[in-house]
Amino acid sequence: MADHGVRPGGSGRTDGIPMIPALRWEEPPEGPVLVLLDQTRLPAEESELICTDASALVAAIRSLAVRGAPLLGVAGAYGVALAAVRGFDVEQAAAALAGARPTAANLAAGVRRAKEAYDAALAAGDGPDVAARAALSAARALHREDAEASTAMAARGLALLDELRPGGGHRILTHCNTGALVSGGEGTAFAVALAAHRAGRLRRLWVDETRPLLQGARLTAWEAARQRMAYTVLADGAAGSLFAAGEVDAVVVGADRIAADGSVANKVGTYPLAVLARYHHVPFLVVAPWTTVDVGTPDGASVELEQRVGREVTEIGGVVVAPLGTQAYNPAFDVTPPELVTAIVTERGVLSPVTAEGIAALEGGA
Amino acid sequence: MADHGVRPGGSGRTDGIPMIPALRWEEPPEGPVLVLLDQTRLPAEESELICTDASALVAAIRSLAVRGAPLLGVAGAYGVALAAVRGFDVEQAAAALAGARPTAANLAAGVRRAKEAYDAALAAGDGPDVAARAALSAARALHREDAEASTAMAARGLALLDELRPGGGHRILTHCNTGALVSGGEGTAFAVALAAHRAGRLRRLWVDETRPLLQGARLTAWEAARQRMAYTVLADGAAGSLFAAGEVDAVVVGADRIAADGSVANKVGTYPLAVLARYHHVPFLVVAPWTTVDVGTPDGASVELEQRVGREVTEIGGVVVAPLGTQAYNPAFDVTPPELVTAIVTERGVLSPVTAEGIAALEGGA
Repeated sequence: MADHGVRPGGSGRTDGIPMIPALRWEEPPEGPVLVLLDQTRLPAEESELICTDASALVAAIRSLAVRGAPLLGVAGAYGVALAAVRGFDVEQAAAALAGARPTAANLAAGVRRAKEAYDAALAAGDGPDVAARAALSAARALHREDAEASTAMAARGLALLDELRPGGGHRILTHCNTGALVSGGEGTAFAVALAAHRAGRLRRLWVDETRPLLQGARLTAWEAARQRMAYTVLADGAAGSLFAAGEVDAVVVGADRIAADGSVANKVGTYPLAVLARYHHVPFLVVAPWTTVDVGTPDGASVELEQRVGREVTEIGGVVVAPLGTQAYNPAFDVTPPELVTAIVTERGVLSPVTAEGIAALEGGA
Repeated sequence: MADHGVRPGGSGRTDGIPMIPALRWEEPPEGPVLVLLDQTRLPAEESELICTDASALVAAIRSLAVRGAPLLGVAGAYGVALAAVRGFDVEQAAAALAGARPTAANLAAGVRRAKEAYDAALAAGDGPDVAARAALSAARALHREDAEASTAMAARGLALLDELRPGGGHRILTHCNTGALVSGGEGTAFAVALAAHRAGRLRRLWVDETRPLLQGARLTAWEAARQRMAYTVLADGAAGSLFAAGEVDAVVVGADRIAADGSVANKVGTYPLAVLARYHHVPFLVVAPWTTVDVGTPDGASVELEQRVGREVTEIGGVVVAPLGTQAYNPAFDVTPPELVTAIVTERGVLSPVTAEGIAALEGGA
C-alpha cells in the first residue's frame, strides 16, 4: 500500500535548491519503504508517495506517479528488493512489476537484474534475508550506474552538439520529460541540455508540452526553471513553426525502447519531430542509457506500444473537453525508424549512423 | 455591448437535431442585433452572445466566441451593418472589425464588402438609413454566398477524394474546426467529410484535438457527433502514429489566408501534418472559399501570423499546468508552402498543382 505526504512549502518553488529525489529507498523503524516523488501532482505540489509493497509500486508505475524509462528500471529493481526484504512472494512481485507497462525496456531489465541477484543468492545456499539484501544491492548498483550513465551521456551529447554546430549557442527542441525526474542522475536528453546550459552554450530549450499528459509543460518546465535555464513551452503542433522559422538547431529526445535495428520507441509525438527535423535538415539525437536497448526486439514493428485510456485525451485535469461519448486514439508511444535518427548517444558511445551493426557492436562490447 | 443567454437543455446534446446557427441577424423591438453561438463555451454549454454594437463583436472575435475564416468574413460584414443601422461611426467600426484578428483574409474582405456598399449608397446620394440597409444587404449576400460556396466545395472535394482513392471508404485526418460553426453553410474541410459521410464513403474522421484551444476536441467532435459520423479524437502529436500505421487516406483542412503563390496560412499544427503527409505520400487537401485567397499577400513569408498570449498554453480551462512564470510560444497559425499542398478546393474550381499562375487564373475568372 501507499501513503501520501505533502512537503509543506514545496509547491511551485523554482529557487534552484535541490529537489526531492524522484525515488529513494528508506529504512524507518516500521520497515523498508520505497519513497517516490508523485509526478502526477507536479508542478502544483511536491508530494511523496510511500510504497510498502510491490503492488503499491505497480499502481504508482501505471498511474505515472513514477515514470521515465531509466527510472522505471531502477524502480523495478527496488520493487523486487522491497518484496524480498518484506518477505512477500518475489516471483509474483517481479512478474507484476515487469508487466506494469509494456513499452519501456528498462523496467523489465531492472526487475530482471534484482531478481537474478536474489535467485543467485538462493541458489548459492543463502537464506532469504541474505538473498533480499543481494536484490537490494543490485537495485542500488543499478541506481548508481544510472547516475553515472547520465553524466557520461551528458558529456558525449554536448560534445556531439558542439561538433554539429561549432562555436554556437544551442537551440534545442525536446519532447516529454527526460531529466532528474526520470533518472538516478540528471537524466538523458535533458542532461545534455543542462550540460550545454552549464557550459554557457544553451541559447534556448524549446519544450514541447507533450499531450496528453503534459510532461513537458508540467515536468520539464519545472526542472528547467529550477536549473535557471532559458526555456519556452509550446503546444506540440507549434514545433513546425519553430522549424520553419529556423529556430531549432537540434532535436534531443530520450527513448523508452531501442530495437536491434535502431528503431526508437519514445513518447507519442516524437516521430513527427523526427520527420520535421529531416525535412528541415536539423539533427535528431536520441539520448538513452544502454539499458534502453533491447536486442531481443528485432525492429520497430515488433515494439509493443502501450495504448492508454481515451480519457487522458478527452479530459484535462478532470475537466471534460470533448463531447460525452467521444472516442479517442491514445497511443503512449510512437516509433522513429533508424534512418531518421542522426545519432543515438549512450554511455557506451555514440552511434551515428544508426545501424543494426553498430548496435550489435556496442552490445557485444559490454 | 454583449449579453449572454443560455439555451436550456442544450448542453452536450448530440441527437442530430439542427444546432443553433453560429451567427444570425435579428431585429427585435429593442433594435437590430447580431446573435452569436458562443463557441468558447462549447461543447459543455450552448450559450448565445447578443451583440448590439461593433465593439461587442470585436471582443467576441478576439475571444474566439465567433471564429473560423469564412464566418469571420460574414461576421465582419454584419458588424459594419450593425454600426450603420444603429447610427454609430461606420468608418471607425469597420477599422476596428477589420483589425480584430490579423491573419484571416476573410474578415477584412467581409468588412470591406459591407463598407463599400454603405459608401456607394452615400455617394449615390442616399441617406444613412438607406446606406445602412445596403450594408445589411451586402452582409446577407455574403452570408448566402458563403453557404453556396460550402455546398460547391463539398461536392468538388468529395469528387477529388473519390478520384484520388477510387472505390474506397475515406479515412480523413482533419485539424481544427471547419464545419457549420465557421460558415454560413456546412463549412469547408468538414463539409467535404460530411459529404463523404452522407454518400456512405467516410470510413473514419480523425480529429486532431488542436491545441492550445482544442477546437478539434471541443467543436469538430461536437459537430461530428451531431452528424453521427464515425470520428475519433487524438492528441496532435499522435497524428504521426496514424500515418505510420497507414490509417490516413487524406489530410483535409481549411485555411485562414491563401497567398498569391499558394502558401496556406491555417491553424498552428497544420504545417507538421503537411510534412507528414508528404513523407507518407498521402494527399494534403486545402478547402477554402475564394474569399480566403488574398492576392495582395505575395507569399507565405508576407502573411502576418497572430501571436496569442502564452496563457492559452500554460493554462487549460483555467487550471495552471506549467510552473508559474513559464514563458510560452503561441503562434495561432502556421504557413504551409504550396509544394506541400496537393490541391486547393474552392467554389471556383480545384487548383492542382498549386501555383501562382493557377491562382491568378482563377482570380481573374471571377
